[in-house]
Amino acid sequence: MIDLNSDLGEGFGAWTMGDDAALLEVVTSANIACGFHAGDPAIMRRTCELAVARGVRIGAHISYRDLAGFGRRAIAVPPRELADECLYQIGALDAFARAAGDRVRYVKPHGALYHSASSDRAVADAVVSAIAAHGGLSVLGLPGSQLEAAATAAGIAFHAEGFADRAYTPAGSLVSRSEAGSVLDHESALAQAISIAVDGSVRDIAGAPVAVPARSLCVHGDSPGAVAMARAIREALTGKGIELRAFA
Amino acid sequence: MIDLNSDLGEGFGAWTMGDDAALLEVVTSANIACGFHAGDPAIMRRTCELAVARGVRIGAHISYRDLAGFGRRAIAVPPRELADECLYQIGALDAFARAAGDRVRYVKPHGALYHSASSDRAVADAVVSAIAAHGGLSVLGLPGSQLEAAATAAGIAFHAEGFADRAYTPAGSLVSRSEAGSVLDHESALAQAISIAVDGSVRDIAGAPVAVPARSLCVHGDSPGAVAMARAIREALTGKGIELRAFA
Amino acid sequence: MIDLNSDLGEGFGAWTMGDDAALLEVVTSANIACGFHAGDPAIMRRTCELAVARGVRIGAHISYRDLAGFGRRAIAVPPRELADECLYQIGALDAFARAAGDRVRYVKPHGALYHSASSDRAVADAVVSAIAAHGGLSVLGLPGSQLEAAATAAGIAFHAEGFADRAYTPAGSLVSRSEAGSVLDHESALAQAISIAVDGSVRDIAGAPVAVPARSLCVHGDSPGAVAMARAIREALTGKGIELRAFA
Amino acid sequence: MIDLNSDLGEGFGAWTMGDDAALLEVVTSANIACGFHAGDPAIMRRTCELAVARGVRIGAHISYRDLAGFGRRAIAVPPRELADECLYQIGALDAFARAAGDRVRYVKPHGALYHSASSDRAVADAVVSAIAAHGGLSVLGLPGSQLEAAATAAGIAFHAEGFADRAYTPAGSLVSRSEAGSVLDHESALAQAISIAVDGSVRDIAGAPVAVPARSLCVHGDSPGAVAMARAIREALTGKGIELRAFA
Repeated sequence: MIDLNSDLGEGFGAWTMGDDAALLEVVTSANIACGFHAGDPAIMRRTCELAVARGVRIGAHISYRDLAGFGRRAIAVPPRELADECLYQIGALDAFARAAGDRVRYVKPHGALYHSASSDRAVADAVVSAIAAHGGLSVLGLPGSQLEAAATAAGIAFHAEGFADRAYTPAGSLVSRSEAGSVLDHESALAQAISIAVDGSVRDIAGAPVAVPARSLCVHGDSPGAVAMARAIREALTGKGIELRAFA
Repeated sequence: MIDLNSDLGEGFGAWTMGDDAALLEVVTSANIACGFHAGDPAIMRRTCELAVARGVRIGAHISYRDLAGFGRRAIAVPPRELADECLYQIGALDAFARAAGDRVRYVKPHGALYHSASSDRAVADAVVSAIAAHGGLSVLGLPGSQLEAAATAAGIAFHAEGFADRAYTPAGSLVSRSEAGSVLDHESALAQAISIAVDGSVRDIAGAPVAVPARSLCVHGDSPGAVAMARAIREALTGKGIELRAFA
Repeated sequence: MIDLNSDLGEGFGAWTMGDDAALLEVVTSANIACGFHAGDPAIMRRTCELAVARGVRIGAHISYRDLAGFGRRAIAVPPRELADECLYQIGALDAFARAAGDRVRYVKPHGALYHSASSDRAVADAVVSAIAAHGGLSVLGLPGSQLEAAATAAGIAFHAEGFADRAYTPAGSLVSRSEAGSVLDHESALAQAISIAVDGSVRDIAGAPVAVPARSLCVHGDSPGAVAMARAIREALTGKGIELRAFA
Repeated sequence: MIDLNSDLGEGFGAWTMGDDAALLEVVTSANIACGFHAGDPAIMRRTCELAVARGVRIGAHISYRDLAGFGRRAIAVPPRELADECLYQIGALDAFARAAGDRVRYVKPHGALYHSASSDRAVADAVVSAIAAHGGLSVLGLPGSQLEAAATAAGIAFHAEGFADRAYTPAGSLVSRSEAGSVLDHESALAQAISIAVDGSVRDIAGAPVAVPARSLCVHGDSPGAVAMARAIREALTGKGIELRAFA
């Protein structure tokens, strides 16, 4: 049993990004943008409605306040303000999730916030404090990250995610995109998805086994090829008898 | 028994506006900005915390998306999108209100949205649909307005507000600020506050009685004089034995 | 001899819109977004560089401040502030145009500002006052509009544009998109383009001749079909021996 | 002979900051906000008009795109995009400076950009590349900074600024505000202003002489006390026969 998650609702105003309708047929958890890196209120409502209609779990994909940079640029926000910015986004999305008949179930930081919350405990603590202040939420992120440590310390359930199409280092982190072999080909990605789901481990870039204790696999939908890959991963997993289900 | 409401939390980032701490000693209901015309997440949190500490009721002071114009410029937002923008703001503020130990109890539109929701039924319906989608909220606005009609039609409780320091027309609306005699002097304002609270009526600009069926009086805090006036109104009302209490 | 103009540089951050590279092979004038409805600084620079490389004339496609609504929502900005917002955009784009080796040559309002500057003289005067304050600019817009009247009154050169694929009313304005027959089919659009360029007139929706004294034709690039149409119009015009050249 | 510079035009929309009118009677150079950390188009126009009327030199006070943080939060913007963001701001302000009868003469980075351009050569190079692309500009900043090195390497004139009311380290940098003795009292600040202007050196926090080769002194106007200090510095300097004049 494993979860498939994807970033959704990442348009803004007249601009679109990705094929949300296609992805919502594939994933079991939707990381929905909350207006800070993408996602305006109308998109947030429609994405929540679609997610509920498809039985897909709603997560808040919170970000630094950075529409111009799509949340990909780290901003030196003081932790207390950062926590407030996170809670603002969670609350806004929760209103749409509730209007659609469900509620926000988890939080996954986006882009630069994902990276800083993974590596910087003060940032991780700020994110987790917002999650704790809201209540009723778990966290989705990188196993072994500062975000996991912060969530665990705060008594917040943490769910680890893995990546089907990215090579892992011997330490269990991702090989940087700038390095050769960092992105797997189609067949290898399918095999790695199954390996993560069945064994909780993969072959690292050097060929040795490394634990990837993930309860969720992250898939993308920002290109036709990405959607096809997401579908192929879903089919490969179900073909192996692995149940696709949102983490509790 | 009457309520006193005021607009609060209207700073943004490094910018401040008004004396929130002073006003929170005066009013019984706080219309808190939600980030669209003013109010960043940190200000929203602090204002909610202060309001809860003072026993002041929290309302969402929703606006058009217009930081540059402080929400004073009407924007031709399609009603469905406008409803989404309203719900976004309510949800965001509710997260801070709940973190502070209470919740958002009512909604009052701000600035240009207050005016358009008063006079334009489609705008009023959009605002009310967001309020209905959120649940658990009443509305504060102008008696006899389209907003009142829309709220009533939707089964949402509507609370009317009056103004101590503004002259009324024979029809019960406010005399435009551009006209002579539109703003009352200190003594007349105190008398009008008591008249609204005790009699539910005032003398209009021509001296004839006109009904002002208000359950709340709006006071301002954007200048030292405004704060002094707000305090004087509170004292004048309590001096007459009128209880100051947030509407239910 | 006629000019072809198109809206370009309308992405923002991670979001793209239209096929600018393809359009810049077709048009002679580029209406480049200035950051208020679309267009971030990096996109503005690259679009100016491409336009200069292609010998395409640069115009400032100014807008209400409305990223969330792509400039399609009228905003009740006081005229003096609106003029300032227009000058801000023109100046910003001019810096990129000059860095690329040219300068901004004309201004065309975008979206809701195009409509309000066409029908509302106060808005038109505000736009024109910014253009006059900058200096060295002409205006592109609807023939017979308030914008034309305002420009003429201010001694600013005005260039009228026509539309190949839209039906005209007997009064020479566009038939609303909501009406049947408002959008022409491919062949009719090509014929109308030639008719505007050669005769300065078209057949209105009822079949009677109506003057369309346009020195520029507006073409679009927001879909593969739109780019194909733009190319076909260019070929149809040049096939008739009509020179495509930016207005002076 | 020395220049006095101050940050001006730092309101936004309905929000005000500092006493620009008072400061413009004191300073010889105005660092005017360009809309990214503060300053809307109307404020930019009015501040340029006032500066020209007072004979005060206009500089572009460019910033990271960060209204919510007043430009005080470093943002990891890639250098090429940062250069574009800088040029955008310079161009926008130049349009108002020219409309007022002058032009932008120099650039001073604001807040977090001031700090990162002082210490990070890649950031400094990005800022300088925008300045070079615009042309006709010099740079105002910290002596010995990466910004000075980048400007010098690009053949852009660099003007160093000093601070009257801040203690200097033996290395000639500012003692951090968090340390005791970092902010000088009124009399010491006046003496230090004169010392910088006359001798080009000050006593560092340990009492030893240290060179401060500044051609400009930075004064503030964000509080009544700050304005009084700025006036006192001006009077102390002119009382010593030091001419106050904008750097060339």
